[in-house]
Amino acid sequence: MSDIYVLVHGAWHTGAEMEAVAGHLRKSGHVVHCPTIAGNNKDDDREKTGLEQAISSVGAYIEANNLRDIRLVGHSYGGMVISGVADRLTDRIKRLVYVNAFVPLDGQCLNDMVPPHYVGLFDAVAAANNNAVMLPFEIWRDAFINDADLELAKAAYARLNLHPYKTFTDKIALKRPLAELPVGKSYVNCRQDIALPHGLPWHPRLSERLGLFRLVECDGSHEMFFSNPARLAQAIGEAGRD
Amino acid sequence: MSDIYVLVHGAWHTGAEMEAVAGHLRKSGHVVHCPTIAGNNKDDDREKTGLEQAISSVGAYIEANNLRDIRLVGHSYGGMVISGVADRLTDRIKRLVYVNAFVPLDGQCLNDMVPPHYVGLFDAVAAANNNAVMLPFEIWRDAFINDADLELAKAAYARLNLHPYKTFTDKIALKRPLAELPVGKSYVNCRQDIALPHGLPWHPRLSERLGLFRLVECDGSHEMFFSNPARLAQAIGEAGRD
Amino acid sequence: MSDIYVLVHGAWHTGAEMEAVAGHLRKSGHVVHCPTIAGNNKDDDREKTGLEQAISSVGAYIEANNLRDIRLVGHSYGGMVISGVADRLTDRIKRLVYVNAFVPLDGQCLNDMVPPHYVGLFDAVAAANNNAVMLPFEIWRDAFINDADLELAKAAYARLNLHPYKTFTDKIALKRPLAELPVGKSYVNCRQDIALPHGLPWHPRLSERLGLFRLVECDGSHEMFFSNPARLAQAIGEAGRD
Repeated sequence: MSDIYVLVHGAWHTGAEMEAVAGHLRKSGHVVHCPTIAGNNKDDDREKTGLEQAISSVGAYIEANNLRDIRLVGHSYGGMVISGVADRLTDRIKRLVYVNAFVPLDGQCLNDMVPPHYVGLFDAVAAANNNAVMLPFEIWRDAFINDADLELAKAAYARLNLHPYKTFTDKIALKRPLAELPVGKSYVNCRQDIALPHGLPWHPRLSERLGLFRLVECDGSHEMFFSNPARLAQAIGEAGRD
Repeated sequence: MSDIYVLVHGAWHTGAEMEAVAGHLRKSGHVVHCPTIAGNNKDDDREKTGLEQAISSVGAYIEANNLRDIRLVGHSYGGMVISGVADRLTDRIKRLVYVNAFVPLDGQCLNDMVPPHYVGLFDAVAAANNNAVMLPFEIWRDAFINDADLELAKAAYARLNLHPYKTFTDKIALKRPLAELPVGKSYVNCRQDIALPHGLPWHPRLSERLGLFRLVECDGSHEMFFSNPARLAQAIGEAGRD
Repeated sequence: MSDIYVLVHGAWHTGAEMEAVAGHLRKSGHVVHCPTIAGNNKDDDREKTGLEQAISSVGAYIEANNLRDIRLVGHSYGGMVISGVADRLTDRIKRLVYVNAFVPLDGQCLNDMVPPHYVGLFDAVAAANNNAVMLPFEIWRDAFINDADLELAKAAYARLNLHPYKTFTDKIALKRPLAELPVGKSYVNCRQDIALPHGLPWHPRLSERLGLFRLVECDGSHEMFFSNPARLAQAIGEAGRD
């Protein structure tokens, strides 16, 4: 069976970091696309690129490739992007798959869903870096990629790119609640993901906004795209199938 | 070691759907019974069969077969039934094993433990079907058997039978709280079971009513009797042993 | 890679019960110490040994062996002890690893973190036993070592020693919150650990006191040192590495 997957990366990543998981999905017979969101390409403007451009860039990719019956997968910040895309291109989507990803309400920005100490940290970093943000390595190592060894944690960190902070502070506009979209919805919860702290977890706090959804879980951190792409690909396949 | 197991099925099921798990338990040397609860046999009256008849039918099965030292296992709605049986035939029970099953307080009905949107759905379906209820396939597929592929989800759905709704609305009478019964208690939690939503989970909301109990967990949905009977049988064996 | 581990046991245990896990860590190339805390040695005074002596005894062990760059691991009650040691010998510690262990605030005793029904039970047992406490076997079997068979549950229980209750009621003095200690912090959560009940869980209730910490999880009960030392050693190694 061959399904069409579009994998939408998280903050600080590009489509290239989705390729390890994409490779496993292709081995299962699927067609997989890994576009890079506007704002994360090498020469994009990190100061001014906002959420609208980010969403539009993935929508344009889908239309340019005339993709239909899509399993649209978003990781982390990518959840903001696929939510916006699904709101606009609903007819092209078969199922939405959130991988420890943000599920916004109409009018929310990403920062509305993270703890205040992250917002404070990001505000300070952005103010010093032309509105671009990066994660400190010690947070990355223990809270984002806690399941990797130090060597992999460092190698993965070296691949990250500065992220346009405006995409975290711009509010999303949705024509209807995501739960009401006439497409399938799945949530993949990586169980040792502590990128969001325990009082404000990914699941079920954000997953339940999807209404009726399929839950798939696996062991791993927020960054299984690096630490265990084979297992994550299996979970995404179980979440994305009919 | 040979223990006596009685597996009591959930709503929409019969004893036949317990047989895959029973087979694995028998391979481990146990004696396993899978009675069908009154109301779920082919020609039973779906309109009028209530909780009292359901409980009595399993009690009568146990007495007719003169079973003792029983590991009495209930799945889902089967938790209502084993609770009633254990209250009456306490001396015949060695240990109660709830598999993502309802654990009632005296005077509660099953519907008291499910979210209002399920009650509303069931009320409407029952009103149109002579007080018998069925699950819509889309809920079954994503919230009950989320760990199966579509083919298995459909095949399992085809085996379900209309359920007598009166067994969901009749209140149970218990002589004492289940925590006070002088038998062992275990709870098997299948971790991707989202048949009950996150605000009203099986575990620990219902399991903690057992007082001192043994927790056993495994990965899987509410319908592991179909999707992974070998793994579920292992969990039930670890829950049921001394 | 060779790291220095010091494994600090829980209540009713000695260093000898840490040896199975220690052996697996040594096979991975690490140097592992398993001191017995004052109060749990064969001839120690169970009536009067308190938390200060317990902490000092492990500190003295570390200094006598001149250990540095330590991965200091505490299990259960051992979390009280490693917290005190880390507060005093901060410069010798590379990373703290709590294995379903108590994480105290300044001025708290262990009993401040357990449910009232345990305190009541311990008070009664201690009053009848010169201030020494033991666990009833039925609690041990179903809530502490729920993943073992009966034979192992009994054999492990036979190895336990009476515990000096004063170490549960003495308050700890910490110069600063553990989250502020300039050492790495990890928490290993054994997922079927119901030694603490669901309303007062180990994780995240106690783990979040560590501030930024690395989460590692595995399947198993509170007593994986007996029931699955190989898997627990793997988790501790992932928690303890840089």
